[in-house]
Amino acid sequence: MHTFNEYLERVNNAIKAIPYPEQPSHLYEPITYTMDLGGKRLRPVLVLMACEAVGGDINRALTPAIGLEMFHNFTLLHDDVMDKADIRRGKPTVHVKWDDNTAILSGDAMLTMATQLIAQAPADVMPQVMDLYNRTAMEIYEGQQYDVDFETRNDVTVDEYIEMIRLKTSVLLGCACKMGALIGGADEATAQLFYKVGENLGLAFQLQDDMLDVWGDEATFGKAIGGDIMNNKKTFLLINAMQRATGDHKVELSLWLSTPNASRAVKVPAVTAIYDALDLRSLSLDAINRYNDEALEALSKIAISDEARSEFANFITRLVKRDK
Amino acid sequence: MHTFNEYLERVNNAIKAIPYPEQPSHLYEPITYTMDLGGKRLRPVLVLMACEAVGGDINRALTPAIGLEMFHNFTLLHDDVMDKADIRRGKPTVHVKWDDNTAILSGDAMLTMATQLIAQAPADVMPQVMDLYNRTAMEIYEGQQYDVDFETRNDVTVDEYIEMIRLKTSVLLGCACKMGALIGGADEATAQLFYKVGENLGLAFQLQDDMLDVWGDEATFGKAIGGDIMNNKKTFLLINAMQRATGDHKVELSLWLSTPNASRAVKVPAVTAIYDALDLRSLSLDAINRYNDEALEALSKIAISDEARSEFANFITRLVKRDK
Repeated sequence: MHTFNEYLERVNNAIKAIPYPEQPSHLYEPITYTMDLGGKRLRPVLVLMACEAVGGDINRALTPAIGLEMFHNFTLLHDDVMDKADIRRGKPTVHVKWDDNTAILSGDAMLTMATQLIAQAPADVMPQVMDLYNRTAMEIYEGQQYDVDFETRNDVTVDEYIEMIRLKTSVLLGCACKMGALIGGADEATAQLFYKVGENLGLAFQLQDDMLDVWGDEATFGKAIGGDIMNNKKTFLLINAMQRATGDHKVELSLWLSTPNASRAVKVPAVTAIYDALDLRSLSLDAINRYNDEALEALSKIAISDEARSEFANFITRLVKRDK
Repeated sequence: MHTFNEYLERVNNAIKAIPYPEQPSHLYEPITYTMDLGGKRLRPVLVLMACEAVGGDINRALTPAIGLEMFHNFTLLHDDVMDKADIRRGKPTVHVKWDDNTAILSGDAMLTMATQLIAQAPADVMPQVMDLYNRTAMEIYEGQQYDVDFETRNDVTVDEYIEMIRLKTSVLLGCACKMGALIGGADEATAQLFYKVGENLGLAFQLQDDMLDVWGDEATFGKAIGGDIMNNKKTFLLINAMQRATGDHKVELSLWLSTPNASRAVKVPAVTAIYDALDLRSLSLDAINRYNDEALEALSKIAISDEARSEFANFITRLVKRDK
């Protein structure tokens, strides 16, 4: 087994080695810019880890792995246009540095390049890998659409929210794990257990993200705390708060949700105080631990070496307990 | 062999039978809306024709054929956002009927659905088909980017223009012909000749489009004449006119190009008169005939039945001589 940092190095080197045509520069420069922004590279690392965990050769998985990272970056690029987000990983987003049309067209090219890279999966598993990837992509668009739909709804349930983040975030981690297992030679049942590991890890990961936006340390987290609160974003926390608040808390929360130009310095601590009073921190941690346990349970059912299993388990725990 | 209308009917029935999930409706309705707008369905018909011409079973080619039509419609959907085009085939475009974000996300989903459909090519040729499709898609994005780049350049050459339309339009017709031949069981050399047929057909087709915008009959063409002239669009005609005009014609043309709010009723006939005086109609027809001949020459080299060859030749002639 390789260490996390070894996988990461392989992934980063492979990303640096992707060949891009020089012309038209206006099409390809935004793509290299986006791929060079960095990021945790979780998805390609998961592909390699799962591949090696089942005894496969990670060299067979490397190109599809970076294809999945390209796909992930494509979704971020188009999401940033749709969300009118100005900054990604501390740098101007493509539609700000260039323009909307450049972001749309370069994003389309990234999606096709991702497909090209993933289609280089070994021939014996290529059809299954391609099918998994395309189905996952469709689910991610569905998740993104539900996220948009939720903005104008006030009756979103916790179950609907969980299904939305499952589609928008978790299925890609499930896909990464399953893709690695398939390329590594696992049978469908084993590969599906890897999918469950990634999917539950993804749910825990997203709920942790919701928590960090409220209770994270700004310096460690690397971005401003309270963004979701300022945007009235329907997170696990806000949806639960809307359902659970009574009396003064209910009145106060409604007031904050309907005050469009509230001061950040006042609104963020006030809403956080309501979340604290409703003990949503414990509620979130319970949910995170539940998904964490489900990921570990799926992992326990997979017939792999103890070393591979504990490597995977450590990885999950580190991701779920992260503070950034 | 089937007739053109029989191929078209098969294609239209297959498009109607594409299964779409019901939810989220905001993601899938714009896709069915776009696919229901109609169009000539040239690309999927070419896939079926080429497949059958080499003795293949068109049932094997039908799903990839409609995948290619889905891909084509995805490019139109995103192009309409980028061009801020309000009308497509007489109906409001998706970004007008819904909004920009819906058009971006639904377009992304169409690109992935297209890939899913094309990945259903028979297993024995799937890797070649997938490779052809992805390379073609990249070329189309490159063509679109060059088209955008040309808007702000005044030194575009005729050769650069031809290369741009080759990428933006012709390679997809080449891809359609080659894909059909591959699925029909043709060897690589034969399939490549089919590519040449489609590619040259595409060049003739686009030059004919440029001509119809100037000399077409508005009632037959189905859209207003002179759109390219009003937009100073760098077509085969304008680029040649800029190079060939001298004296008064040169002065007059420059004036029209630098008069942003010119009256349509005056500008279109005036620029058309310059094109007529420079005999660009003959120049265009010569170029169209040259590409037409190259398509027919490639066709003549393919070892297929006389019936199949004449069916293809008739199709090419009808497309190139079309008045709408």
